Amino acid sequence: MAVEQYRQYIQHILAERQKRAAMQQKLNSEEYEVQTIFDEKQDHYQLLYVGWRGNRRDFGCILHLDIKDGKIWIQHDGTEEGIANRLVDMGVPKQDIILAFHEPYIRQFTEFGTN
Amino acid sequence: MAVEQYRQYIQHILAERQKRAAMQQKLNSEEYEVQTIFDEKQDHYQLLYVGWRGNRRDFGCILHLDIKDGKIWIQHDGTEEGIANRLVDMGVPKQDIILAFHEPYIRQFTEFGTN
Repeated sequence: MAVEQYRQYIQHILAERQKRAAMQQKLNSEEYEVQTIFDEKQDHYQLLYVGWRGNRRDFGCILHLDIKDGKIWIQHDGTEEGIANRLVDMGVPKQDIILAFHEPYIRQFTEFGTN
Repeated sequence: MAVEQYRQYIQHILAERQKRAAMQQKLNSEEYEVQTIFDEKQDHYQLLYVGWRGNRRDFGCILHLDIKDGKIWIQHDGTEEGIANRLVDMGVPKQDIILAFHEPYIRQFTEFGTN
């Protein structure tokens, strides 16, 4: 499947989750944001939260994906649903999805890609 | 100062630190990367590390900056030198730099911007 298609899928999913996370987490803090960062040139995509809740700083990555050599690398997935399954539902072959948060030697025992 | 100038400054500094961090941290792991993510449309900029050292997963943000309403927000700074000082050295007025990792009410007691 074309890399351009993967770029659109990833950005679609991250924007969708951004909306959902923003609704759940915004509460009443002015500085609280859920951001997407889309770098199409380098093919890095991230969803993160940043802000203050009273005097507590919140900052962290929710999702980080890369496209490398035509495959989607899931570097970090802090969601409950698992973005890999969502990508499969959209039609991405499992071989084109690398669960990079699993140790390299473990990946051969999953149904997903190995590199 | 023009926002376009700020975009260039931020990307220059992050690329510079990417090289330095990559040299220090790469060691001998094939999957280890120091990445920059540049989203000029939304003005979010991040430097992070991702990879494996043996069976240990490394994933984390080194720097995260935004441009909002013509000002540079330092959301996260995990560097020793402090990127705020580097920006000042490049000619950015302190009022245009928000130390967002400090609580909002603390910022008035710094030499930097308050919002």
